[in-house]
Amino acid sequence: MSELLKVGLLGYGTIGSGVIKMLTAPEFGLSGRIKLVKVADTDLVSEREVKVDPALLTDDPDAVVNDPDIDVIVELIGGVGAAKKYVEMALDAGKDVVTANKYMIALHGDALHERATRGDARLLFEASVAGGVPIIQVIREQLACDRVLSINAILNGTCNYILTRMEQVPGMDGEQAVDEARRKGFAEADPTLDVSGMDTAQKLCILVRKAFRTPVLPAQIDLQGITGISNVDVQSALEMGYRIKLVAHSHRVNGKLEIWVGPALIPQSGSLAQVNNEFNAVAINSEAHGEQLFIGKGAGMMPTAGAVVGDLFTLLNHERVPSLLSQPRLDLPVVDRNDVRCRYFARFTVKDQPGVIAAVSSELASRGISIASVVQRENTVDPERGVPLVVITHETTVGALAAAVAAIDHREIMLQPAHTIRIMDSL
Amino acid sequence: MSELLKVGLLGYGTIGSGVIKMLTAPEFGLSGRIKLVKVADTDLVSEREVKVDPALLTDDPDAVVNDPDIDVIVELIGGVGAAKKYVEMALDAGKDVVTANKYMIALHGDALHERATRGDARLLFEASVAGGVPIIQVIREQLACDRVLSINAILNGTCNYILTRMEQVPGMDGEQAVDEARRKGFAEADPTLDVSGMDTAQKLCILVRKAFRTPVLPAQIDLQGITGISNVDVQSALEMGYRIKLVAHSHRVNGKLEIWVGPALIPQSGSLAQVNNEFNAVAINSEAHGEQLFIGKGAGMMPTAGAVVGDLFTLLNHERVPSLLSQPRLDLPVVDRNDVRCRYFARFTVKDQPGVIAAVSSELASRGISIASVVQRENTVDPERGVPLVVITHETTVGALAAAVAAIDHREIMLQPAHTIRIMDSL
Repeated sequence: MSELLKVGLLGYGTIGSGVIKMLTAPEFGLSGRIKLVKVADTDLVSEREVKVDPALLTDDPDAVVNDPDIDVIVELIGGVGAAKKYVEMALDAGKDVVTANKYMIALHGDALHERATRGDARLLFEASVAGGVPIIQVIREQLACDRVLSINAILNGTCNYILTRMEQVPGMDGEQAVDEARRKGFAEADPTLDVSGMDTAQKLCILVRKAFRTPVLPAQIDLQGITGISNVDVQSALEMGYRIKLVAHSHRVNGKLEIWVGPALIPQSGSLAQVNNEFNAVAINSEAHGEQLFIGKGAGMMPTAGAVVGDLFTLLNHERVPSLLSQPRLDLPVVDRNDVRCRYFARFTVKDQPGVIAAVSSELASRGISIASVVQRENTVDPERGVPLVVITHETTVGALAAAVAAIDHREIMLQPAHTIRIMDSL
Repeated sequence: MSELLKVGLLGYGTIGSGVIKMLTAPEFGLSGRIKLVKVADTDLVSEREVKVDPALLTDDPDAVVNDPDIDVIVELIGGVGAAKKYVEMALDAGKDVVTANKYMIALHGDALHERATRGDARLLFEASVAGGVPIIQVIREQLACDRVLSINAILNGTCNYILTRMEQVPGMDGEQAVDEARRKGFAEADPTLDVSGMDTAQKLCILVRKAFRTPVLPAQIDLQGITGISNVDVQSALEMGYRIKLVAHSHRVNGKLEIWVGPALIPQSGSLAQVNNEFNAVAINSEAHGEQLFIGKGAGMMPTAGAVVGDLFTLLNHERVPSLLSQPRLDLPVVDRNDVRCRYFARFTVKDQPGVIAAVSSELASRGISIASVVQRENTVDPERGVPLVVITHETTVGALAAAVAAIDHREIMLQPAHTIRIMDSL
């Protein structure tokens, strides 16, 4: 527990610039407590919005990690190549590490923690999940004494922005919304990791590891992105009193863990439905504390930098931080994805001809799937492209629905593959 | 930093029962880490929902505080008499203290912290504000590196329940709603501390002390309760797109601190407006992290016990906890209450006769208060009791409005004193 924490920064990009700003700008008053000693980046040429003393800059990360004057390495390189190598070097050398690297923590969190424990170092990663929301800290500190029952979260600001815009602008399709998000700085040039749900799945793995003490890899998660969502889906959901959000879900059920990432219809009156644009939110239900909801900015320079610097403060103030490994693992088995039960929204783009509803409903009925409501509207503009038939089912299993949809997709009445979305009435 | 924390509990009431449950029930798995050594209460006779080993019970708090085997005192007596005496004894003896006592912390937090520092003890009080929301921890850990700009919070579940019910049931007045809250266990037999706003003011003092590092006493806060709110106010607000909530507000403005507690009209689409029934919420805006919102249960046996036990976990895990006193005080001056600016909702219960609107509007105009909208409805049921004239003003100062209202209240057109409520369009 030192009175002045000496920091080496790997990565002088957007988040790195935010960290430099917080550590040096007088309004944060941190200069006497946390000292920036070295900053490494492969690019020392590009102009940055936030300047740093050129004497601190180096293009050699080894020089930062090996500097005996540095207590803590802040890793903002990303990925699991160089980033992981330098984090391992730092932990082996007994240096603490603060990282925003969700991919590395989701894949190698346990191994890195074991390494940290061996090296008598500490590893913190608040910025890896929902930067502006202190959810890792809350699970680590407040909920460590409690029994978590469920997590439902909106963890990707890009997807949430896209879905919000598709709702606000009838007719706007996903690609238009992505273009707009890109122009506004809410989406990467290549948003595949975001819209595929993979970014959300990585973050959910980190939350589940902490909250349910169960290691789960992103590849084990039933994952659906938002690329298949059409404006018809978003507007039909709205008319029925729902909003579509990309939800990260996990909850205990009969001693097992149900876990998935995908778009879901949630009631407009529910609290997660109020989380719009680039905001993130985590709803946690636990035995003692009951329902809690945390909302904040999920990304961006300053919220993420705030999470990184918050972790530095934790290192400054606490000799020991309860780690992933300090409590016994529960290793809850994961519910088979085909056994997960919920109601469904299904859109079938069908030919405008007799017998269509009969065909769809008989395929559903033969798998024991009961229909709660059906809406089919006329397509007066372009009947050749078919009409959307929207069906809401009663509760069924993922497996039964998938079988019914596969059968319906083979029928010649279908003009496009069906698209199904979960309904989460409890959110 | 001990591996087994030995706890003495003062107060075997509702919250104490919850703490005992968490420390002993197997589903929380805490028995190997936190051990309940003694429990003191003046009433050892009444049956409780949660049982405790009779060998641990005593009616002598001194025996608990002086027990050398006990590391931590959990104070759940309440008030500033015996509670404060035993907390001081414990801190002087170097025992850590966890308390849910908002009144004691709001009034004597600084003095107790100095005492803790002298005694090399730690004092934690997460349960004193919004039990189910870890807001003290968030300010202490995550926001310690940031600069807080504003806090807007709903901190009293009783008032929030009452206002929610008055909204849901047109015609239900405050007293009926209090009766219902009492029957459902959401209000005390004497709810004065709650409905007067005093409970909220005490909690706001604690948050302000931590977030703005400025000591403020409850008596210094401009305080308005919810007793004057009529169903007409709640329903008129609803029609205009607002909800009335009892808001605890503070924000930095030109190097000063604006701080008040009172009912406010907040837009129905705003996130605080979604917080209903007995839930609490804290919205914090800070320089780096941006806007954050935390929602959870504010009271009740298990959420509050969860906060107490969470603090015990913090003591178990951390040698040192950043205290109120570890950062320099800012001592921001408080803005004079008469200079606070906002828009207002004003209800005038007037005689149904010519010239009434002219009289009210001229008194407002002569103090520079501009009217944004006026609604007066016919009272066909009982014209003798007058008609409610609801005025929405443009932004004005509290002082100007108070002067205008005093003048209007003296006019013979008035059948009841006017009632004014702030409008917070930004929430």
